[in-house]
Amino acid sequence: MKRAIILASGGLDSLVTTAIAASENEEIYLLHVNYGQRTEKKELECFEKICAHYKPAGVLKTSIDYLTKIGGSSLTDSGMEIKDFTGTTEIPNTYVPFRNAHLLCIATSWAEVIGAQSIYIGAVEEDSSGYPDCRESFFESFNKTIALGTKNSFTIEVKTPVIHMNKAEIISKGIELEVPFEYSWSCYRSDTEACGTCDSCVLRLRAFKKAGVTDPIPYRRKTL
Amino acid sequence: MKRAIILASGGLDSLVTTAIAASENEEIYLLHVNYGQRTEKKELECFEKICAHYKPAGVLKTSIDYLTKIGGSSLTDSGMEIKDFTGTTEIPNTYVPFRNAHLLCIATSWAEVIGAQSIYIGAVEEDSSGYPDCRESFFESFNKTIALGTKNSFTIEVKTPVIHMNKAEIISKGIELEVPFEYSWSCYRSDTEACGTCDSCVLRLRAFKKAGVTDPIPYRRKTL
Repeated sequence: MKRAIILASGGLDSLVTTAIAASENEEIYLLHVNYGQRTEKKELECFEKICAHYKPAGVLKTSIDYLTKIGGSSLTDSGMEIKDFTGTTEIPNTYVPFRNAHLLCIATSWAEVIGAQSIYIGAVEEDSSGYPDCRESFFESFNKTIALGTKNSFTIEVKTPVIHMNKAEIISKGIELEVPFEYSWSCYRSDTEACGTCDSCVLRLRAFKKAGVTDPIPYRRKTL
Repeated sequence: MKRAIILASGGLDSLVTTAIAASENEEIYLLHVNYGQRTEKKELECFEKICAHYKPAGVLKTSIDYLTKIGGSSLTDSGMEIKDFTGTTEIPNTYVPFRNAHLLCIATSWAEVIGAQSIYIGAVEEDSSGYPDCRESFFESFNKTIALGTKNSFTIEVKTPVIHMNKAEIISKGIELEVPFEYSWSCYRSDTEACGTCDSCVLRLRAFKKAGVTDPIPYRRKTL
């Protein structure tokens, strides 16, 4: 039985990744992690709708909101400002230190118990904000760490099907797989109406434009 | 400034590791993680006493008790039986899937934010229960994963100073460093009086005997 766990944040990239995993596996399991980010309420709402749509064999919702105690990121520390998109190549302050490693650990423990061979994560390397834990080399290293740190009765592999796609390609792939884009949220700032000016909103809006499709979610303003 | 984070469970190995880290660094930070284990109440009590003794520059107490939802271990699943020590070489059911990776992730995120160069963990490879996430090769791989998944403004290294010691050597090292053994707990089953018959109790009791020292904590019975 081909079984996969998918890290589903409620965002666009993980939604398309969910659709890809659903097309490649017999059973999918959806994992959502609240890491104390500002827009969790909306992301969780999206996750619930994504679950209702894809009908996974299992669902796990967890919290690692201790990341708010650790801080160091404007997504988890309300005292830090989320800046508007500037196009700089520096790592922005929305970087949550080592976050993806935490998410993959939860997925790995779960995979060991339920016998899932694959963990899908919708990380994007190039067309993104330059977070170090979104690099392909990081995931390759994580796979070696899994092989050494688990019981090894079977192989568990982290898969990153959209890592070399740009956002417009991800949207095109999503259209091909008929994903419900209305059940996704990307804004870093607001959980009611997307701000349209943070890094995440601008990258999303540009990608929808490039893909020639209308983004179905509500925006306060649209910066392109 | 030499700054280190120590994973302090409240157990014997991490207590001696704390003493080693305190002797090698200018500032120490103690991290305690509740992973939903049966004896957490007692372990946390020990941790508090260890903090009062070593006076760390910072303390972080967190919970990843979602591991009880994932299960797969008799430490976190009350429906599974913790067996008496048998001396088998098989990995016992007390193995918590990939647990140490979760702990190291929390320490890594914290290290990135406070600028700690080292993370100490009291893992033991040979004289232990054979958990895969206690192997030196696992920690070496984790260090590569940290280097690839963090911002890299400085190096963060996981250190395992007792990994090749046997338990009696760890106790001898602790005596040399004057550690308060009465502030440590090892029993997997009970948080009032150590059972004296689980893997962890038997390994501890044998080691104290071999080191020629009396274990100061209370036992229901002593199996040697």
